Amino acid sequence: MHHAADRLLSACDTKGAPVCVGLDPVLEKLPAAVREAYAQPVDAIEVFSYGVLDAVKDVVPAVKPQIACFERYGSAGYAAYERVVAAAANHDLCVVADAKRGDIGTSSAHYAAGLITGGDTWRGGDFLTVNSYLGTDGIEPFFDAAEAEGAGLFALVRTSNPGGDALQGLKLDDGRTVAEAVADQVADLGERCVGERGYSLLGAVVGATKPADAVALRKRMPKQLFLVPGYGAQGGGADDVRACFNPDGSGALITASRSVIYAPTGGGDWIDAVRAAAETLRDEIAAILR
Amino acid sequence: MHHAADRLLSACDTKGAPVCVGLDPVLEKLPAAVREAYAQPVDAIEVFSYGVLDAVKDVVPAVKPQIACFERYGSAGYAAYERVVAAAANHDLCVVADAKRGDIGTSSAHYAAGLITGGDTWRGGDFLTVNSYLGTDGIEPFFDAAEAEGAGLFALVRTSNPGGDALQGLKLDDGRTVAEAVADQVADLGERCVGERGYSLLGAVVGATKPADAVALRKRMPKQLFLVPGYGAQGGGADDVRACFNPDGSGALITASRSVIYAPTGGGDWIDAVRAAAETLRDEIAAILR
Repeated sequence: MHHAADRLLSACDTKGAPVCVGLDPVLEKLPAAVREAYAQPVDAIEVFSYGVLDAVKDVVPAVKPQIACFERYGSAGYAAYERVVAAAANHDLCVVADAKRGDIGTSSAHYAAGLITGGDTWRGGDFLTVNSYLGTDGIEPFFDAAEAEGAGLFALVRTSNPGGDALQGLKLDDGRTVAEAVADQVADLGERCVGERGYSLLGAVVGATKPADAVALRKRMPKQLFLVPGYGAQGGGADDVRACFNPDGSGALITASRSVIYAPTGGGDWIDAVRAAAETLRDEIAAILR
Repeated sequence: MHHAADRLLSACDTKGAPVCVGLDPVLEKLPAAVREAYAQPVDAIEVFSYGVLDAVKDVVPAVKPQIACFERYGSAGYAAYERVVAAAANHDLCVVADAKRGDIGTSSAHYAAGLITGGDTWRGGDFLTVNSYLGTDGIEPFFDAAEAEGAGLFALVRTSNPGGDALQGLKLDDGRTVAEAVADQVADLGERCVGERGYSLLGAVVGATKPADAVALRKRMPKQLFLVPGYGAQGGGADDVRACFNPDGSGALITASRSVIYAPTGGGDWIDAVRAAAETLRDEIAAILR
């Protein structure tokens, strides 16, 4: 049976490092040649996305399109997102749909039907990020849909923004932080759907800016793949990264967005610059894990 | 200046009660005549939505389309959602876009650009529901966009699902629950943008299934409008509802979805049945507040 975590880990082995390029296209940051070639901003971000996919497809195992960047253009943006996901899949890239959806019961099932299962004419992501605030019965309908497809989830546990502390870092009366309590719920719920490589289809988002947090969360969630944003532009470094892996060097997917997709061109072709930045990301993470 | 909370409260006065009809169209539950008339499910849910809007437009001040029900059909569903929002606005109904979006920084700003500001060819909602797990700096970009438009937000504080307890009901070491800590953050952030009627553009989602919780949260958030799901089908009753209001009987918007939009027809026209159920909702809530 298809199992997204097994597939992702295998792709990481093939490409040489567990890394992911975040695809957060924003009009103002696009190369001028792309930005100025299209009357509609949504067309420019779509074409830019294809360029990034082309640049990174032989270098990294996974991409993480940020659906907000597309959804800001309404249904036209949503349609562009669908085509970009399909293009990524055609390049044999694992797709982490970064949508951070969260609701309860049937509403969660509806989101899952769109973003995991996909519609008749498009496909969903291999993984979907989901919000944890509504509790495990907010995550379960996503998990059911994911299991049926062999797809995976990353539940928000610890985010890398400073304000994440104000809620996720609060201490409970039992000594755990809020994030640790969520981690325990995720670990418990994720006991099912563990693949051949030892990881559940239910993973966790763990921001890479606090190594001590990452170590504690790793212990609580040994069977969760960690999706780790915050490498590069958001400030995470080697020690932060290492803390997210299990002792055998497996179990996390390190994501960089702006430092790769907006890599300085030095006057050359922007697609070459993106490819070179993706290679640097891959080589840096491989070196940390060596 | 346009202020969504002032406008909503004024509309509640005009219509006679602070009630909202949740628009959660699901193919299997539609009247057979609508379900069977269209080859594409997304067309059936769109046409059904127009029927509900027509039925309730003279009865209630607000509607709350559940975007998950549309998004399950991908970009085609998103386009239908845009048209349904426009139709509701044409009927002079306040629109609460129930999208429960949540992210940080620019991603939140992108969601806000789509769902609050709207694109060139469509309009956003008057209010948007947002998730609180990423902390106040996850909410601030939404709030900035909302303020610029005079639109409002409802931040998730306490949800009505059983599993919401498992996280939101946890006790902190300072004696507050997680939900109370979030409430304090929302009250603090919402000190700005208070309208003529005394309510901030930043409101809160407070599930109506636990009256003691609602009383405690009301005290912590006197200037927040409460969006209260869970009346009717989800099990909330009169005492639960009363606890969500300030002593003067203002400050909450009571939402019912399935009990209205899927009201039994008794063999008659389904639009008449929806209208009658909306009138019952309005009259029940008006009686509770009298």
